[in-house]
Amino acid sequence: MTRLTQKRRSRHTPAEDGRSAPARAPFISRQLDTFSVLSQEGLELIERNADRILQDTGMEFHGDPEILDIFRMAGCTVEGARVRFDPGFCRRTIQATAPRQFTQHARNAANSVQLGGNATVLCPSWGPPFVHDLDRGRRYASHADFVELVKLHQSLPWLHHSGGVVCEPVDLPANKRHLDMLYAHIRWSDRAFMGAFIGAERAGHAIDMARILFGADYVAEHPVLYCVSNTNAPLVLDSHMSGALKTYARANQPVACTPWVLTGAMSPTTVAGTLAQVLAEATACLALVQLINPGAPCLMGSFASTMSMQSGAPTFGTPEAGLMVLAAGQLARRLGVPLHTVGTLSASKLPDAQSQQEAAWGLLMSMFAGANLINHATGWLEGGLVTSYEKTLIDHDICGKVARFFDGIDLSENAQAMDAIALTGPGQHFLGSDHTRLNFMSALFRPWTADNNSFEQWQAEGGKDAATRANALWKKQLERYEDPGLDPAIDEALKDYVAKVKSSMPDVNYF
Amino acid sequence: MTRLTQKRRSRHTPAEDGRSAPARAPFISRQLDTFSVLSQEGLELIERNADRILQDTGMEFHGDPEILDIFRMAGCTVEGARVRFDPGFCRRTIQATAPRQFTQHARNAANSVQLGGNATVLCPSWGPPFVHDLDRGRRYASHADFVELVKLHQSLPWLHHSGGVVCEPVDLPANKRHLDMLYAHIRWSDRAFMGAFIGAERAGHAIDMARILFGADYVAEHPVLYCVSNTNAPLVLDSHMSGALKTYARANQPVACTPWVLTGAMSPTTVAGTLAQVLAEATACLALVQLINPGAPCLMGSFASTMSMQSGAPTFGTPEAGLMVLAAGQLARRLGVPLHTVGTLSASKLPDAQSQQEAAWGLLMSMFAGANLINHATGWLEGGLVTSYEKTLIDHDICGKVARFFDGIDLSENAQAMDAIALTGPGQHFLGSDHTRLNFMSALFRPWTADNNSFEQWQAEGGKDAATRANALWKKQLERYEDPGLDPAIDEALKDYVAKVKSSMPDVNYF
Repeated sequence: MTRLTQKRRSRHTPAEDGRSAPARAPFISRQLDTFSVLSQEGLELIERNADRILQDTGMEFHGDPEILDIFRMAGCTVEGARVRFDPGFCRRTIQATAPRQFTQHARNAANSVQLGGNATVLCPSWGPPFVHDLDRGRRYASHADFVELVKLHQSLPWLHHSGGVVCEPVDLPANKRHLDMLYAHIRWSDRAFMGAFIGAERAGHAIDMARILFGADYVAEHPVLYCVSNTNAPLVLDSHMSGALKTYARANQPVACTPWVLTGAMSPTTVAGTLAQVLAEATACLALVQLINPGAPCLMGSFASTMSMQSGAPTFGTPEAGLMVLAAGQLARRLGVPLHTVGTLSASKLPDAQSQQEAAWGLLMSMFAGANLINHATGWLEGGLVTSYEKTLIDHDICGKVARFFDGIDLSENAQAMDAIALTGPGQHFLGSDHTRLNFMSALFRPWTADNNSFEQWQAEGGKDAATRANALWKKQLERYEDPGLDPAIDEALKDYVAKVKSSMPDVNYF
Repeated sequence: MTRLTQKRRSRHTPAEDGRSAPARAPFISRQLDTFSVLSQEGLELIERNADRILQDTGMEFHGDPEILDIFRMAGCTVEGARVRFDPGFCRRTIQATAPRQFTQHARNAANSVQLGGNATVLCPSWGPPFVHDLDRGRRYASHADFVELVKLHQSLPWLHHSGGVVCEPVDLPANKRHLDMLYAHIRWSDRAFMGAFIGAERAGHAIDMARILFGADYVAEHPVLYCVSNTNAPLVLDSHMSGALKTYARANQPVACTPWVLTGAMSPTTVAGTLAQVLAEATACLALVQLINPGAPCLMGSFASTMSMQSGAPTFGTPEAGLMVLAAGQLARRLGVPLHTVGTLSASKLPDAQSQQEAAWGLLMSMFAGANLINHATGWLEGGLVTSYEKTLIDHDICGKVARFFDGIDLSENAQAMDAIALTGPGQHFLGSDHTRLNFMSALFRPWTADNNSFEQWQAEGGKDAATRANALWKKQLERYEDPGLDPAIDEALKDYVAKVKSSMPDVNYF
């Protein structure tokens, strides 16, 4: 079987209504620099501290004796589940074999994404057990919501990836729903998608399904899945995560080793302390990937945010979270692996002002950090408990804005507009200028959810806030969704596989 | 008379309720770098193009023969109102005498602000003829609103400056209201404030009032006012603006020479073309300031945003506006003068998601640009037609976030937290750690308007959106406002001056 889609089509939403849509690559190619928050000395300090943590305290790998053997064989000190590392060991191990950059292939080759270098790939919301929209309110997510979100995301041109658990379909058995989620991504989207993250068995199912879709030989040679492996901070990797990590690493599929911390709870309450711990955890896991399969694609992940010490609630879009992702970008580049991180996070309960203050902050910081894959670039509310349909559309505008912004400044002769300025002259206007007429469609980004009209016109159109406008827009986008199709033989084989696996397992409603 | 306040007090709002407030300087001292969007070659290209515009097209100075004489005397080519400049003339003139950095003094010395270098000063909304709050709705602004806003701003610790026309008090005669505005800033705030911008006469009133407040000798030696001088783009300075510019420059008071453009209308629709025009206009006006009074304090201003070419409506928080302010920062640094620009602009009609997506974008871009004074850092809605009370509070949180962010990362031994990590160990948590207990109050920024509680708690508290919470907060801030007091003799003298000037003029309701 080869990589096939029944119907090839452009990924670009037509801009017939004057809204902007991307014209080029299926990911952002940043033309601007990254932003540094730490000096060379500061970075070396964090790296030395990470080394000290790995040497003195070490990291624990729970419930997985094979991992302990792997580290023991590599010369690390193993006591119980605790592994201690010589200074520099993890870094050397990673730098010896980890690729700096690779491609995750989509079934539609036009949607394959580069991971590394100046590429940034934007993924939708991941993980929420609830969904929210203005019509149906806040509710437990269902499989129907999952499919609807996959279709909505596929229709959004500034997203690049179908993601993973776009919401948690809690109406399906917990131990089987990954099969339905994987099938939904494959069937209703032709973008790259993520594998199942929890446990070796489910990871194996994802690889099996990828082999049905792409062919086993192709999968052996090409990254076609994506695994986020979260640590149990501080300094633990549990067997659910390590099982998936090992399975994907052995199958040559990308693993993003991602310490997930809230400062003050799972790491020190300070930025510098958290960074050292994040780097220690990430490099230990990345070294594990490279020891299991030298050369396997991997990313350094960072999901470090803050916590309200008054209430214990996680907080997002904070100055400290911004500093941490920017430093993580610098650390990942020095390590020589791509950076995986997070985007438009918010603790707000509504797609309101708070949600966008936090979302815009978060996505911009990750972009300035040079992140190569940004999870949760759209839709996340309530600290990850909710995927919001309206926020998905509003966040999608920030996705477009950063894409355009990181194109940088066009310095072509046309863009310099020297003739236009000379011909227009002092005190005149450029509205009627030929240069304006020829350029305005391409020169300016146009968001979808913003209302820039006069107060009077806005009022005449119902005086709607951004969330209300976004409500109409996601429904319109779902109408615009085009089924990318799927080879009926592949579709049949996938359905058979899912049915066979499901029938071999009891229904279990826990992870 | 000397610089006096009847009552000196800390400018810092107490954080008794756990909300963050600044602990140090009355402006932001950026510890992080600026961000570059243009290479050396790109900057030189824009500078060459600005020179070509000034040489070939030139700039017009309407209604002010004295300015034409000044430029003629300096060797420029004058034809009618049009002045043409030899390449490099404006740059050389500015660089010969303009200070790189200076202080604008406040009547409370603790509130004096540095303009230039790594300092950023945040000012409130400027110019709106309407105000909006959730209780009273959208309405024409009055003098009572003006005073209320001055008091509100004075109570907000992340703002640094009392600003100028925080709203346009349209219930007062247009030709006299500047006197009431100046008096309100002096009486109800002890921060630095702006002068009157329109016409030499009103600028003279501002200087007279500053002399009453600070003493004439002091004003002759120290910047105590601030003038924004907007061009009539493209390439015109009218006599309203040039009159104020000349008056302030002669009085050694700072002038921010600020081309105000919407691309596609007042400048080419492209970023590179707009930048060349902005630089041409700014340098011509800055050269004028230096020819009038060599060494007078001045800033390069940039207020360049975009326009919807579908509707002709101004648009804000756009990728192109971000690129333009970042490039303007680079150009200002090469010129050797501080950068004046704008902050949390939005075209939204409500303090909703759109308003914060645009506001967060705008303020962050200006901060990364290294802006030295940011006008409209809070409250602006509807493209500047409205000052919103609720948005003022929500924007104020972004002001705090950028202040904290640009402090950079604390690398002290305490912040490294190596003992805390060693003592906590794998799989434990930091909630009970001594390090957390000692650091959490200072380590993490806490916004005022965000709700980070659980959905259930948020719902129990009324399920309010950010704007509704901000509504309660601005009222609370007004209650917290403390009258900074004013020497009764100065107060009397100011009132007498205002009364005398007013009685000498007819009421006129146009500018």
